[in-house]
Amino acid sequence: MLIEQLSKLLGPKGFTQDAQTMAPWLSDWRGQVHGRASAMLSPSCVHEVQAIVRLCVAHGATLTIQGGNSGQSAGATPDDSGDALLLSLRRMNQIRSIDVDAMLLRGDAGVILAHAHDAAAAIGLRFPLTLGGKGSATLGGLVSTNAGGTQVLRHGTMRALTAGLEVVLSDGSLLDLMTPLAKDNQGPDPKQLFIGAEGVLGIVTGVTLRLVSEIAMRAVVWLTLDSPHRALAILRALEARLGSAMEGFEIIPQAALEAVLEHIPGTRSPTTSAAPWHVLVEAVSSNGEADPSEGLQVILAELIDAGQIIDAVIASSEAQAEAFWKLRDSISEAERAKGPALQHDISVPVAQMPDFITLVPEQIAAAFPGATCLAFGHLGDGNVHFHVRPPAQAASACGQERPDNKPAASACRRERPDSNVRPPADSASWIAEFGTAASRIVYDAAVAMGGSISAEHGIGRTKRTLLGQIGDPARLHLLRAMKVAMDPDGLLNPGVLIPD
Amino acid sequence: MLIEQLSKLLGPKGFTQDAQTMAPWLSDWRGQVHGRASAMLSPSCVHEVQAIVRLCVAHGATLTIQGGNSGQSAGATPDDSGDALLLSLRRMNQIRSIDVDAMLLRGDAGVILAHAHDAAAAIGLRFPLTLGGKGSATLGGLVSTNAGGTQVLRHGTMRALTAGLEVVLSDGSLLDLMTPLAKDNQGPDPKQLFIGAEGVLGIVTGVTLRLVSEIAMRAVVWLTLDSPHRALAILRALEARLGSAMEGFEIIPQAALEAVLEHIPGTRSPTTSAAPWHVLVEAVSSNGEADPSEGLQVILAELIDAGQIIDAVIASSEAQAEAFWKLRDSISEAERAKGPALQHDISVPVAQMPDFITLVPEQIAAAFPGATCLAFGHLGDGNVHFHVRPPAQAASACGQERPDNKPAASACRRERPDSNVRPPADSASWIAEFGTAASRIVYDAAVAMGGSISAEHGIGRTKRTLLGQIGDPARLHLLRAMKVAMDPDGLLNPGVLIPD
Repeated sequence: MLIEQLSKLLGPKGFTQDAQTMAPWLSDWRGQVHGRASAMLSPSCVHEVQAIVRLCVAHGATLTIQGGNSGQSAGATPDDSGDALLLSLRRMNQIRSIDVDAMLLRGDAGVILAHAHDAAAAIGLRFPLTLGGKGSATLGGLVSTNAGGTQVLRHGTMRALTAGLEVVLSDGSLLDLMTPLAKDNQGPDPKQLFIGAEGVLGIVTGVTLRLVSEIAMRAVVWLTLDSPHRALAILRALEARLGSAMEGFEIIPQAALEAVLEHIPGTRSPTTSAAPWHVLVEAVSSNGEADPSEGLQVILAELIDAGQIIDAVIASSEAQAEAFWKLRDSISEAERAKGPALQHDISVPVAQMPDFITLVPEQIAAAFPGATCLAFGHLGDGNVHFHVRPPAQAASACGQERPDNKPAASACRRERPDSNVRPPADSASWIAEFGTAASRIVYDAAVAMGGSISAEHGIGRTKRTLLGQIGDPARLHLLRAMKVAMDPDGLLNPGVLIPD
Repeated sequence: MLIEQLSKLLGPKGFTQDAQTMAPWLSDWRGQVHGRASAMLSPSCVHEVQAIVRLCVAHGATLTIQGGNSGQSAGATPDDSGDALLLSLRRMNQIRSIDVDAMLLRGDAGVILAHAHDAAAAIGLRFPLTLGGKGSATLGGLVSTNAGGTQVLRHGTMRALTAGLEVVLSDGSLLDLMTPLAKDNQGPDPKQLFIGAEGVLGIVTGVTLRLVSEIAMRAVVWLTLDSPHRALAILRALEARLGSAMEGFEIIPQAALEAVLEHIPGTRSPTTSAAPWHVLVEAVSSNGEADPSEGLQVILAELIDAGQIIDAVIASSEAQAEAFWKLRDSISEAERAKGPALQHDISVPVAQMPDFITLVPEQIAAAFPGATCLAFGHLGDGNVHFHVRPPAQAASACGQERPDNKPAASACRRERPDSNVRPPADSASWIAEFGTAASRIVYDAAVAMGGSISAEHGIGRTKRTLLGQIGDPARLHLLRAMKVAMDPDGLLNPGVLIPD
């Protein structure tokens, strides 16, 4: 019997059916999707992964593949049939080697992101991708979801930072692509098939990461300005003048800043000048390069003189720079404290982002009077986190561009409910009733602008139906053809990514 | 009948069966592979390409897809059955749009590389990939062969510079991926399937190129040194100190320099100090960045003091910089003038390159006494052009590292035959008799070091059998599975890339 063979193969450290041990890994990170599994498999090496795959193929079983279980789309959560086997890569957590000269780190799929950061820092280098779940997220999961973050502007997503992969295919064979070559033209690059594939085309068991130079100096600046269109103009000006020194460009509406100041202890506004929009800029330099603050100060002075920026505050210390970033990084937590909202992770071409941020709240307000929108995040990547809040709960319209360009601060503060008051019970029922229709407005707008319904978080289980409804037919056809070619028996992550 | 339908569809400008018109396009760039075709199809737009594909599918015909016909592996040459239809994309040669802010150029697949260079320069930007065939090579061909060149060190190959694609699939459907998104996680990136795929998975009809800032200043330096291992150490030192300013790092053996000085009119050596190895370095800066010569001078002085470099000459003018590059770019021509040689386009991990350059000539000399090797090119990418010359023709061993580290110049000069003498007739017969075995030593060594049998030039028709013999089985399996999934009827470029 399969279960007995797996138990014997993996031993007590690698095999469990204990409900309590498995429980934390059967719900997704957000606690919204719950599944079941007949056993959890935790192989210690790639050969065990290959043996598991061969056994499963022989018995017609399926695998749900999981790293740190910190995904945002439930792509690592099994279905609720109870038939699935949960394959956890967390026990494979060794850093295999670090090459200072070649600036490469090779590790097992289960290496946790924060450990990779530490290992790179220990040799004076840096892995330039980070995100909230860095204490849980694993290299294999980061590759499989093509993770992003706030440094994509300069360094790209995991796709750009993945120099090599080791993958177990659905027949149990091993594809060893761990040795990076700058040039290799023997057909298309096979590792690309597994980056962002959410485990449906193969099981990532090893990753070679590109490292970059340590940051020698950084300049972190808080800007206030009057519109998202202005923010884009400033982004272009900074890119043209600072080039590759630009590492972050995050847009924050006044309403989001206020939510942070209200709900997150120990925070304070970097600026006294009220403004409807804020931007957090980070520019960096490596050893031997000029201090980025110098160039930045000159450009910002010009932009203030030209009336493009209302105010600019350059962080005068690392502590202040960290405090600025804490404001940005606390928005999600502050927003949660305000009560439930529909969240969307969309992207559009960078040039379209200001229109998106401006127009979609108007469409939502027209369709659902009283509902409010909040857009914040990676303007420089054409990617914002876009929240829609039910009417009863937050009647203010902060976060939207106002025709008169007047700051919305006072209006917001008056109308926001006491932070200790629980959100009204009807928020949840509003979301249940109107959520799908409201979200569809957001997604349709993104697609109409040539954008994506999933910028960073992937499709997983939560957006699979939506992808089937509004995904590009030719691209869906290709995705399905890949699946049939590479996993003809449907062994890997059934119910994830690919629409029925 | 198919031919009549195609003729009617495309009209006289888009359809020919005239032998003289077709002749130049039925042999490969090197003139070594010759094919036949029943007609040449030259569609003027993507809709005609779709219609051609649908007609061919209905009639079970096959297409050989061609851009500028400047490929080095005969991937655009039809077989000699005479059944193939030659699909030329050259008539589709419009630049569709240029976006200065987003630094993107959108063009038809048939846009010639030099025209793309000019169009970018006209708006103060740059497309940072160039190669010898830039007056013929088309965007679609560059994508399909994942072209490289001398700027890969900084900017990557076409894979890194391709922001978007338009592709006609084997069923005639259109995959429009022309709008680049910095973040788009709806499964793996579909455009990756067509980059380097040599047209066997789809027909590239449009390309969105990433542009970069103009070069404001450049520093071009000629170095002399004693070994390839020293060259690697210098590369690492420059990378660590100059970072992304490093745009080129080309290694040149003394024998190659001498061949250029002898065969190419108007060339002269940049240095009077004899040395077995030379390196050409280019470092660049954009507007607002520091002059790269300043940092470079400091580092080079340190390296000379430390005995790492014998001599360094910084080009004092653009004319001198161009003269330095002409020496590098003339090596192939000079080598051709010396007579036939086996040429290999291989890559290995950068750290292994010095061993490869040192050890493989020893293996060749042991197996084929008197045969000599020459390795030159992109050390910084782990990619050299590796020539093996038959014994009778060139008895010198220049280009190999000598145990005593003495320059080989005088020895070479003595032994080289007069440049007006034609190569001996037995060179060709030596190559016919021993070429395959000698080449196999070179390729096996590359594979043993984790390298590639095709770094830049692709597989095409000329390396397809070899790939089947020594390619990684798991990777070949994947390549075949892709082909079956995406072109089940074998419409596209039969006989190219994928081994039987």
